[in-house]
Parts: sequence; C-alpha cells; structure tokens
Amino acid sequence: MGLNAVTKEFEAQLRQILPAQALRDVAPHYLEEPRGRWMGHAGLVVAPDCVDDVSAVIRRASDARVPVIPYGGGTGLVGGQVAPAVSETMPAPLLLSLERMTAIRGIWPEENVLIAEAGAILSDTHDVAASEYRLCPLSIAAKGSARIGGNLATNAGGVNVLRYGNARDLCLGLEAVLPDGSVFHGLKRLRKDNTGYDLRHLLIGSEGTLGVITAASLKLSPVPAGQGTALLVVPSPEAALRLLSLARDQLGEAVSACELMHRTGLDFLSETMPDLRQPFDTPPRWFVLLDIGLPAGLDPQMALEPLFTEAAERALVSDGLIAQSQAQREDFWTLRESIPEGNRRIGAISSHDISLPLGEVAGFIEKGWNAIKAIGPFRINCFGHLGDGNLHYNVFPPKGAHRDAYPKERSEISDVVHNLVDRLGGSVSAEHGVGRLKVSELERFGDPGKLSAMRAIKSALDPWGIMHPGAVLRSHPEGS
Amino acid sequence: MGLNAVTKEFEAQLRQILPAQALRDVAPHYLEEPRGRWMGHAGLVVAPDCVDDVSAVIRRASDARVPVIPYGGGTGLVGGQVAPAVSETMPAPLLLSLERMTAIRGIWPEENVLIAEAGAILSDTHDVAASEYRLCPLSIAAKGSARIGGNLATNAGGVNVLRYGNARDLCLGLEAVLPDGSVFHGLKRLRKDNTGYDLRHLLIGSEGTLGVITAASLKLSPVPAGQGTALLVVPSPEAALRLLSLARDQLGEAVSACELMHRTGLDFLSETMPDLRQPFDTPPRWFVLLDIGLPAGLDPQMALEPLFTEAAERALVSDGLIAQSQAQREDFWTLRESIPEGNRRIGAISSHDISLPLGEVAGFIEKGWNAIKAIGPFRINCFGHLGDGNLHYNVFPPKGAHRDAYPKERSEISDVVHNLVDRLGGSVSAEHGVGRLKVSELERFGDPGKLSAMRAIKSALDPWGIMHPGAVLRSHPEGS
Repeated sequence: MGLNAVTKEFEAQLRQILPAQALRDVAPHYLEEPRGRWMGHAGLVVAPDCVDDVSAVIRRASDARVPVIPYGGGTGLVGGQVAPAVSETMPAPLLLSLERMTAIRGIWPEENVLIAEAGAILSDTHDVAASEYRLCPLSIAAKGSARIGGNLATNAGGVNVLRYGNARDLCLGLEAVLPDGSVFHGLKRLRKDNTGYDLRHLLIGSEGTLGVITAASLKLSPVPAGQGTALLVVPSPEAALRLLSLARDQLGEAVSACELMHRTGLDFLSETMPDLRQPFDTPPRWFVLLDIGLPAGLDPQMALEPLFTEAAERALVSDGLIAQSQAQREDFWTLRESIPEGNRRIGAISSHDISLPLGEVAGFIEKGWNAIKAIGPFRINCFGHLGDGNLHYNVFPPKGAHRDAYPKERSEISDVVHNLVDRLGGSVSAEHGVGRLKVSELERFGDPGKLSAMRAIKSALDPWGIMHPGAVLRSHPEGS
Repeated sequence: MGLNAVTKEFEAQLRQILPAQALRDVAPHYLEEPRGRWMGHAGLVVAPDCVDDVSAVIRRASDARVPVIPYGGGTGLVGGQVAPAVSETMPAPLLLSLERMTAIRGIWPEENVLIAEAGAILSDTHDVAASEYRLCPLSIAAKGSARIGGNLATNAGGVNVLRYGNARDLCLGLEAVLPDGSVFHGLKRLRKDNTGYDLRHLLIGSEGTLGVITAASLKLSPVPAGQGTALLVVPSPEAALRLLSLARDQLGEAVSACELMHRTGLDFLSETMPDLRQPFDTPPRWFVLLDIGLPAGLDPQMALEPLFTEAAERALVSDGLIAQSQAQREDFWTLRESIPEGNRRIGAISSHDISLPLGEVAGFIEKGWNAIKAIGPFRINCFGHLGDGNLHYNVFPPKGAHRDAYPKERSEISDVVHNLVDRLGGSVSAEHGVGRLKVSELERFGDPGKLSAMRAIKSALDPWGIMHPGAVLRSHPEGS
C-alpha cells in the first residue's frame, strides 16, 4: 500500500475543485525550516479558504494515496513543517497551507471565548482579545508568524503555561478534517462536555498525522488587574525552585511566569547583540524572571516586595530588580525573549527541549553539567520555563570555535542529555513536539504500550498513511 | 465475533493467577446504581491489587472474549458501573473492581503533584494533600465514595471546575491496562510532555471502554491564602452571569466557584430536610453561591464587599450574605450540596446534566421553562455550576403527585430539553458522561465525523470489544 507522488492528473483534479487563488507556487519558504537542518520538497502547494475545500482536497488525496503535509506558520523547531527528500516511502507530497483561513470567526468576551481559523496568526488573536479587554494566554517567541492550527497541532507551550496551561489546555473545541476527508465539527464554546472520546485532545499534539485542524474555539482570560515583573538573582537552581514555591504559596495562580536564565545567556547577548541594554552591572550566574498578574485591590509592587524580603531572609534571593514601569517590564521580557536569538547567532552543537519533574530540575542541571564537561570544554546555556520544569538546554562550542568542528560530539551530547532526562522521569520533547527530528527518540524513550496504541490509532484513522507520513511515527516501523 | 459469558473454566483460570483475596463475592452493591434504574449482573467479581494482576486478568479476558466492566466507587449517574441484563450481546461479564488499589504512591508538595492508585477514594486524596498544605481541587458531591479511577474514566466535573478545570485538566499522567492486557506506563509528573499522541486524554472520559486506569498522577494547587463565600440574591440568571463576569474582571482566577440556585431547591429542602438551616428569611427566586480564594495580602471580606457594592449599583444583586466565619462558609456549601439529595427525595420525572455556552444560559432557562410548562404543570429545579455553563435541569411532578404518574411525559420532557440544548450549541452530557443512559443521545446529537472516528478507535484498540461493551458506544451499531 505505497503512496504516490503528486501527478499532473492529480493536480488537474484539484484545479477542478479549487478556485485559482488556492493553487500556490511551490515557493522556497514552504520548503525551509528555521534551523536550516532540512530542505523540504513538495509536488504542489494548495491553500483552500474553507473547511469544505480542505475536506475535498483530503478526499482526493486519500483516493489517490498522495501524502499531505499540513502547513501553518512554518515556525516549528523539529522539522514537522517540511517534507523530506523524495523517496519511496515519501514521494513528492501535497503541501496544504492554512494561510488563507485566517478569519476570527467570533469573540464572546463575556464567555471568555474566541473562535479562530487555523491560519490565524497567534499575535492577531492576542490583538483581537485585547480589543475586548481579554487575554489570549498562549504566547511563544514566534507569535508574530506562528498560526493557531500549527500551535494546536504541536500543542505549543511558551511563557504562560505555569498559569494558563499548554495550547491544549486553552482549546475548548476544534473543527478538523480527518484523513478520509470527513469533517469533525467540534467547535463548541463549552467548559464541560462529556459526550464520548475526546477527539480534540487526540488531534492536538498529533502534529497533523491524524487530520488537519481548520478552526479552534479558544479559551480567553480576564486581563489581570495589576501586573508586575521582577528579575531576581538566585544562588542556585535549587533556590530558584524554592523561590517559586514560596511565590506560589503566597500568590497562588497570580504567579504567571517563572523563567530561569544563566549568565551564559547574558554573555551571548553581549557578544551578539551588544546594543541590547542589560539590566545587571555584574551579570549574575543564575537569575529568574518572575511575572505576576493580580486581582484588583493588590498592587504588584506591594506584592513583590514582601516576597523579595521573605526570599532574601531565606537566602533564596541575593539581589533583584522590580520593574518600576510598564516599559521596564517589557525590557525584562525582551531580555528573556532575546536569548534564543543569541543562541542562534552563536550556533549550538546540540539543542534540547526537555522537561523534568520540578524536584529533579536542580539535580539534572548539576549532573548534566558534569557529564557535558566530561565530553569537552563546551559552553552550556541552560534556560527556560522553570515553573513548568521545561529547560532549553543548549550546548555550544568553546569561544572562538565553530559547531561544525564537533560532528562526533553532537550525538554523544544528545545521548547523554536524553538518557539523563529519561532516567529522572523527564521528557525528551517538552513543548516542541516530535516532528521528524525526534522520531527515533520517541521510539527509544517512549512507552511501548503507548507506541503500540499510537500505531493502532494511526492505522485506524489513516489506513493509507497519507497524513504527514514520517512525522511522529516512522512510515514503516522497523520490523513491520 | 461474539462475546462469552464468564464460565467455570474462566473463573478457574483467574483463581490460578490471582491471590484468594482478589476473588470477591458478587455482592448486591456491585449490581446497583444510585438512581435505581438498572439492576446489574456479573458472572464474577475480581479485585486485583496491582497493575500486573490487572494486566493478567485483562489478557485472560481478551483471550476468552469475556466482557469486562471496570468498577470504581459505583457513584456514576448514567449507569456506567452496572452491566445490563444478560443477553446475547452482553453475556454475564467479569466485574473488575479497583477497590484494593487504594495506595497514595507518593506526594511531592513542592511540585504540586500526587500519585494515587485508581481505587483511592477522592476525599482521601483531599486529606493527603491537605496534610501537606496542598489542595486537590477535584471535588464532587460523591467524594466520600467515588474513586480516582472512576473520576478520571468519566472526566468528573464538580464545583471547582471554573477555577481548576475538569478531572482531565488535573491529571498529569496515567498508568492503565489496555484491552489486550498491555500496560501504558504514563505516570509522569511533568507539566509539559509533547512526545506523541495524548493517550492520557483519550483514556480519560472513555468510561472504561478503551482500558482500565490503574493509577494517576494528579495536579495539586497551593491552598489559597484567604477564602471567602457569599450567597448573593440576583434578579435573574442573566444578572447572575453578569455578576460572574464582573467578579472575574475584578478577581480573575480567584473566583473559585459560582453556583446558581433557585427557590425550588430551597422549597424541596424545606419539604424533605426541614432540620437543615436555611440562610434566607424569604427564599429568593434566584441566587448564587460565589466562592473566592485569594493570594496573601487580600482579605476575602475586603474583596467581596466592593464587589457586592458594585454589583448592587449595577442592579445585578439585590441582597446577599457574606460568610463571617469558616463555619458559615461550610453552611453555605452544605446548602448547595444538599440540593441533589432534596431532589432525590422529591423524585424527578426527568433529570438532565447539560451545558451551554455561557451566553446562551439565560435564554435556555427561559425557553426551557416555557416549553416544559406547555407539557404540564411541572416543577423545575434548575441549578448548578453557572461558571461552567453546566446546569442540572430537573423536572418534577406537581406537588402531591408522584413521578410514576408521568411515564409518557418523561421522554417528551427529555426530548424538549435536549433538542433545545443542541440547538443552542450545548451538550446533553456536561459532566456525568454517556454510560448506558445516553448512548442513544450520543448517536442522535453527536457529530457524525466524531462518532465514526470513535468507532474506528474502539475497534483498533479493542478489536474483540471486551472492554465495557455497550457503554458510550452501542455494541453492535445499528446498520453494521
């Protein structure tokens, strides 16, 4: 039951059912991904503008056994948006872009609900929500180009997960086209709905391998009455975790974000973005960005100051800056959000998006440091969403050297990191997904019972294997 | 591919692999359900005390094609816990009770995580969490006998959903036995884990039809620093919704619960539980219980009073009581939690667990009232979790009459209610699930694309159909 490449006949079929503007050139940007690791291929790019056309396209692709790659904003970091080189198991696919389905179908501020089509840009949903004094909490660095459909297909995380949850936690309902072309009409605006299996959660995080999300009903939140941000210098990651615990004991869900950063991140910014204003005269070894959003009646400064004092008394914090204005809050966040760009400019040998039980984070950082240093004199930039136990753990060449000088060490580093994460009960893909990059890692570290159930579900819903073949699950599992 | 009843040979096989204390008498309580609508049957009851024994039992049942009913606390309200009368499609099943798997395997207060086995009683998890100054937010009226596994299998809701989410939102990971006896080892303590399809969310809410949950990793929360409760008299459900919106604008997530009640509920309590102290001298037509939990630094009284004043100015509240002590808070909650028992003693003709988009709640209440009154002079007790758009909508005979006098009206009422809910974008099962009671309703109101995907998933994971046949999905779908 092999798959077929896009043919002239297939293209002609699609031209018959789609309007001319839905047929796109196979432009280079459809074939690239942000880290430049893969170059994609596509036999054809189509961009339908309604769910019925998406359904018609998938039905034709299913009949013709043509592989389909759903395409959102193209910002994913695990190669899920590109089709690999043409091969027998992956002939030139159809790339189905959601770029013309960008409507915000409605907003219900009193319900805290917004319905967006899959091609809506994440930051556009923020703007629409803000215009009604609401918060669309999902926020990631790529928010200016990432699209809602891709955010949900990959269950995006980001900076507000501690308080508001991952993408899946912010989704009340979906409209999606399944691999046989049938439509799942599940765009409910309900907080409770226990009518059968949760197809929504199955599609979210399945990275387009079980269907194409075409629209979503999203949970909004009230904008907190008062917001405050602090940069707090901590003696160790362990102290940072205890600081977070203290903050949550005092302020509960009002703690919106707790981001850990290391001096290496500041050094990289000094080196690659010297114009960026840095907040510390002497860069600290470890520090956190703590963000709070409070109910009416509590002033953020008045809440952060006693926390700071108490934390200092417990030796959890040695120094710190509390933002005195909205502009300073934004500066603190700009610092945090610039760190990935600093990393990119330096060039990592190996990058890891991992999560750990909170209680294992500090131990991991220490053990990881020792293990990496045993391999070579590398620089480590470990930072990320501490409140979620989610670290971006990136290993760089020594100053003056280039990552290309360490091809052998790359997989050694990755093995060391992932084995350690697995041993500590963590995950080798916290928020970026599996895509094409981590298919082998999933086979290696995934639970066999879960993998077997995943393959059964994939075969049941997509018997011809047309949807995003090779992503998440290998097209032809070894031994099959 | 029919199923087989439990035979002497099958029982002998299980006796060989299980310790003697795992074999239970088929006691009457295994065959009853709270509303007395069905009487169950069972060929055998087993209660393994570890996941390996559950796996061995399921493997034998799969080999022998014997149907298995997973059994938790037996508190479900849709007949999911009882096997129907012996028939060709449902021979005398094996009842698999989780009552001996009650361990709390661990608690990590700093991580806000607890791992409990499926047989742990919900209120026991509350106590363990409280002993570490943590909150286990899932709370339902049956918490003293409901078990965690059943709570998750049915995605229980309850009174804290507005702030903390449904059961599924509180689950970080699962251990479960799949229909072929294989074990899904997914007891992670992670906030982010994007490694493949979310089998956890597929099992949660599948009501035991895709496997047996044996343990769960549960999210805890810090106990709010200050808690307050008010009973507020509102002129209408519409005003109650606007009050909730105002409260959330001021206090955000600090609003923990918003429960709507009607005078009929108070009347029923006066009639059936005259000793219960009622808070109002003159019972109001509509009122809400508003519960808040605040960060340190904000006094609950000081937060509720300005809300009350503002709401009164906007004519959203006409009267109210703010609890002056913990004892009074508990009294207010006792009133709310007694309402289902009052209903039970009166005896409803038809009960409905429905949800609606928040913006449709008030319209539903008005339209529903008119439609029911057109059928007969019935009493309506409409109450529930307003913040979740989840109403318990119960229709009673006129005073002095018995529900048995209205057999014909029962389905008429149910049709009217469910058709209206469906037309308004709601759900005919908000938090109780489908069980055996609502299989036809799911077929009627469920999305065809979703139903077809559900059947494909069921066949893929449980090809012999041994797990909980007839619950959620009909064993032999009509027309197959």
